[in-house]
Amino acid sequence: MSLPKALEGRRRAVIENITPSVDGGRYAAKRCIGDTVTVEADVFVDGHEELRCVLLHRRRGEARWNESEMTFLVNDHWRGTFTVTALGAYEFTVTAWPDAFLTWRHDLARWTAVEDVAVALQVGIALLRDIVQRAQGSDAKQLRKWIARLGADADPMVLRNEALDDAVMMLVERYADRRHATIHDPPLPLWVDPVQARFSAWYELFPRSAASGGRHGTFADCEARLPEIAQMGFDVLYFPPIHPIGRTKRKGRNNALVAGPTDPGSPWAIGAREGGHKSIHPELGSAQDFRRLVSAARERGIEIALDIAYQCSPDHPYVTEHPQWFKHRPDGSIQYAENPPKKYQDIYPFDFDTEDWRALWEELKSIVDHWIGEGVRVFRVDNPHTKPFEMWHWLIAEVKRVHPDVIFLSEAFTRPRPMHRLAKVGFTQSYTYFAWRNTKQELVDYFTELTQSPSREYFRPNVWPNTPDILTAYLQTGQRAAFIARLVLAGTLSTNYGIYGPAFELMEHAPREAGSEEYLYSEKYEIRDWTRERRDSLRPLLARINAIRRGNKALQQDRELRFHATDNAELICYSKATQDGANVVLVVVNLDPYYKQAGFVDLALAELGVDPTQPFEVEDLLTSARYTWRTGRNYVELRPNEMPAHIFRVSPLVPREAQPSAAAKALA
Amino acid sequence: MSLPKALEGRRRAVIENITPSVDGGRYAAKRCIGDTVTVEADVFVDGHEELRCVLLHRRRGEARWNESEMTFLVNDHWRGTFTVTALGAYEFTVTAWPDAFLTWRHDLARWTAVEDVAVALQVGIALLRDIVQRAQGSDAKQLRKWIARLGADADPMVLRNEALDDAVMMLVERYADRRHATIHDPPLPLWVDPVQARFSAWYELFPRSAASGGRHGTFADCEARLPEIAQMGFDVLYFPPIHPIGRTKRKGRNNALVAGPTDPGSPWAIGAREGGHKSIHPELGSAQDFRRLVSAARERGIEIALDIAYQCSPDHPYVTEHPQWFKHRPDGSIQYAENPPKKYQDIYPFDFDTEDWRALWEELKSIVDHWIGEGVRVFRVDNPHTKPFEMWHWLIAEVKRVHPDVIFLSEAFTRPRPMHRLAKVGFTQSYTYFAWRNTKQELVDYFTELTQSPSREYFRPNVWPNTPDILTAYLQTGQRAAFIARLVLAGTLSTNYGIYGPAFELMEHAPREAGSEEYLYSEKYEIRDWTRERRDSLRPLLARINAIRRGNKALQQDRELRFHATDNAELICYSKATQDGANVVLVVVNLDPYYKQAGFVDLALAELGVDPTQPFEVEDLLTSARYTWRTGRNYVELRPNEMPAHIFRVSPLVPREAQPSAAAKALA
Repeated sequence: MSLPKALEGRRRAVIENITPSVDGGRYAAKRCIGDTVTVEADVFVDGHEELRCVLLHRRRGEARWNESEMTFLVNDHWRGTFTVTALGAYEFTVTAWPDAFLTWRHDLARWTAVEDVAVALQVGIALLRDIVQRAQGSDAKQLRKWIARLGADADPMVLRNEALDDAVMMLVERYADRRHATIHDPPLPLWVDPVQARFSAWYELFPRSAASGGRHGTFADCEARLPEIAQMGFDVLYFPPIHPIGRTKRKGRNNALVAGPTDPGSPWAIGAREGGHKSIHPELGSAQDFRRLVSAARERGIEIALDIAYQCSPDHPYVTEHPQWFKHRPDGSIQYAENPPKKYQDIYPFDFDTEDWRALWEELKSIVDHWIGEGVRVFRVDNPHTKPFEMWHWLIAEVKRVHPDVIFLSEAFTRPRPMHRLAKVGFTQSYTYFAWRNTKQELVDYFTELTQSPSREYFRPNVWPNTPDILTAYLQTGQRAAFIARLVLAGTLSTNYGIYGPAFELMEHAPREAGSEEYLYSEKYEIRDWTRERRDSLRPLLARINAIRRGNKALQQDRELRFHATDNAELICYSKATQDGANVVLVVVNLDPYYKQAGFVDLALAELGVDPTQPFEVEDLLTSARYTWRTGRNYVELRPNEMPAHIFRVSPLVPREAQPSAAAKALA
Repeated sequence: MSLPKALEGRRRAVIENITPSVDGGRYAAKRCIGDTVTVEADVFVDGHEELRCVLLHRRRGEARWNESEMTFLVNDHWRGTFTVTALGAYEFTVTAWPDAFLTWRHDLARWTAVEDVAVALQVGIALLRDIVQRAQGSDAKQLRKWIARLGADADPMVLRNEALDDAVMMLVERYADRRHATIHDPPLPLWVDPVQARFSAWYELFPRSAASGGRHGTFADCEARLPEIAQMGFDVLYFPPIHPIGRTKRKGRNNALVAGPTDPGSPWAIGAREGGHKSIHPELGSAQDFRRLVSAARERGIEIALDIAYQCSPDHPYVTEHPQWFKHRPDGSIQYAENPPKKYQDIYPFDFDTEDWRALWEELKSIVDHWIGEGVRVFRVDNPHTKPFEMWHWLIAEVKRVHPDVIFLSEAFTRPRPMHRLAKVGFTQSYTYFAWRNTKQELVDYFTELTQSPSREYFRPNVWPNTPDILTAYLQTGQRAAFIARLVLAGTLSTNYGIYGPAFELMEHAPREAGSEEYLYSEKYEIRDWTRERRDSLRPLLARINAIRRGNKALQQDRELRFHATDNAELICYSKATQDGANVVLVVVNLDPYYKQAGFVDLALAELGVDPTQPFEVEDLLTSARYTWRTGRNYVELRPNEMPAHIFRVSPLVPREAQPSAAAKALA
């Protein structure tokens, strides 16, 4: 006989295409604590029986599944939900079976002839007799009462109506025969992050420029800056590497090949005789100073994020202690970074093909562990795409297993597939191409992809208008309006965004040379003395934008992003709404930094949860101006030299209580 | 240490998203013998090294992989091919690794300074010394010669040019260091069918109506029909069930609940005292007659297809021999088929939830095996979606393991997901919604889905304008032009198609009642005496269409189907072309069976492989009329009372040899 022994042929339900699923369950979908997870699947059975379909979910490691009933949507597609209440690993799956009682009930309702109903009642009694064997106590008692009643000498049509009572179904469902239920195997993984993984505003700062007067800044100077950063509303303060900087082949001002005697060098040339990745550059302060800063920041609701840059200066202790971790040149010297014909002689990359890769991986992980020990919970990882993907997979999983609250931001500005792979293997957030998406069509296409494609299950965008490496042509030439437009776009299109300051709020825009995205007098190579108290600083606007983000839940999630038509290619219009429709934010940005642009926006009111038959109010949260709009088509006019954007909060004029059905209908 | 022992951290290449793949490799993609299989994958590595990427393929069970080099396309996407030369199970996968020699070669070409080139040559010598250890014989000798040459006291720039010679690369590639190559695991399955699985024309016939004068037809009568069917160009002759027909609750003419004494009953009410699914209805002839018919058909290039309908009449021997295979009613009788409030008391469905399901499955499989033993190679399976999917999975795999040339057609007119599931679990071909896709947009959408979506890897459409169960409103009302239009659409949109004859060629179009898709005087319940030699019979057109299909390779595959714009909603226009562009067929159909329709078609000439700068010829293969067209925009006019379709063969006016680049360019 060719039938495999292990096969159970009566397991007839089919479960396919469960979502959320990343690479068929190989990687975890990502959610944040408190989220309601929506699970969908295609579920069906041969023939015409009625199905039951149950969502199973649990924290990984728990023995018992929690269950929640799934609902049939359409076309063999089912949906269920559960809420995640703890950080870390969850798993879920779906079970389904053709349900004898539901099928019987469904048929019972459709028989018309009395004699057919009478036979069906007999079939029902047999079914309930089977079911009652699995019940106990008062449930069993109740079931026996129904069995007796179905067998009573009464009008079958009356008995039928009693048998169809929902109470019967609800009790019977508890004792369904699940011996031949299909369970989709293996379960799908889900990872639950802190809320900050989804909603965060990052401020990047070179600590050595935190002082004034050109003095080398310290952690204490950074501490003194905290009130200002908190007032601007940022909740992550990210530092480029804080470790001792190499002296050999140190780069000078504006990336000069030879450094002057006072040039501080690039913080990414990590390691000197004072130490390596676990040490602090002496001029910044002590380990104690650092811990104090981390605490002071946390008291203000700010996490200090460190830069993880796995590379060494020629002076790094690793170079002498672990020469086997580096490639060697024919003359025996250590291979510096190169991209022929260019050479980067101040940087030694690790050789991940080393025979000693296990010790290297463990050491690299110990760097993260070290800083977690110092209180750090957020890491920005430099160029992760130039290190093995499997190393990140292992390293991040191991770190998060012990510290599920840790956040890793992937700084991979590379091709789409490696960027996505890094997100799959564990990075919490990812840098994006946002800086180079400037036209309306580019922004619509890119954010539709980011928020609506299946990659949203694992790829969390963190968008930056500028970084120390990226000063775009748009910012170089567009002046104040360009900075504002990009800020509004970043802060409202994406829940996670960041800026490199004070360069951003001071609208620093001179490139090192024409055609370059590098800053002139880049902080990467020198200490800058920023004049922060400028009248034209964008600091108040930053505070406003971040306050708007905090005050509007619609801006704290990305999935409900919808673009709306405008009749002017320089005007982009989009909305975000909470799922219950209670908070709706509508944004219009003039992408042209030079000229006033005006035109009509055509709002899909139903998608906004707005009753199209009633006037509604839009309040510009940037200016506090209020307008009453009566239709979806409305005129807007934005002047770059005043304010190139509207951030409207949309509210019904009639209080919601008085017209409860509008939003509900639209979202139904 | 938390690093798993089995992990090899130097296996750094990533291989994702291999196609063709069905449900991540759970089911086999389908191809036909002789096909070139194109495999694509996303392949990349951390950092900037050069990759090598190799496609591995073999027949399942073979110990060694065959290899073919994959080519980089764009954006980390690679492609490779192999040709399948045997029926049955194949498997394939992809291996890749960052290649030290290719990376070195790439860098060597980019160094500009002589001293850098000199160092690179030293690095190359070390690399080649490693590589030569894996080489033998003349290859090793040649490699040693190059090592010596690279170390020669000569101009480094000259040595570089020699090192960059392709001959060096091609020899070195044979001895690449693949110790840390990634191999995508597990391999993906592929099933290779006979060509008839992809390209077939079916003719359905009730054998009992094969005689004339109202006499019960026999296999001998069918044999006498073979020349006519062969002349029409069909290669599958499909019979409804040929088994003894039950008498209990037999249906009469036009599905009457009570049969008259001479009513023959429905062939799908299988089983009587004369036998069941392995027996032949006595009036059709003997087993020997059947075998003779199968042989006679095969001599004319026609396969006899049988109907597999797993259900029983109340008189089937199974009912008494295996009562446990059926459900029982409260009164102990066997449960007939029902769909409340309807009852089908002439049919007993199997109870697949029986404790004895293993014996049932084995018996059902033995039915297929029996008819294979009688020479049958093609089966049409009745309502497979009302039997367990896993049974089909097992049954078809077991049958095909021994008989890889067998073809199963799934007759599941149900929701999309069960239909697709049946195709995944093993059915060779599937009935479709074609009969109910009548407007241009419906046809464009449906055939785009069928031929361009990922389901094409496993779902092979077989489209039928009519069946004994389906007489569409379009055919009921549209008369001759409707039959012709649907025939041309079926035969050219799909490589597999079928008709139910002689009802089709005789344009039988009277429904049992208004609003019904059932035929009046349906052959399902009575013997019909067809007057086949009618002047208006579509038989000559069927012969023409099938001859066109056989004579044009473009019509023997579906993947290159392209729709072209027309300015008239009643005119549909599409093309198929062979991959080499040597055969291009262009079809225009007037979907309006009542009125002449005219308009312009706008051909995407480049997609057709036609040089848009040159005039070209279109020859109507239905009428032999030839036209010279000079641009992609051309006027057509189709009269339903003459011929509502063009089937053009498109050819360059200048012979192809004289303008070799046009098609090549377009298809590049």
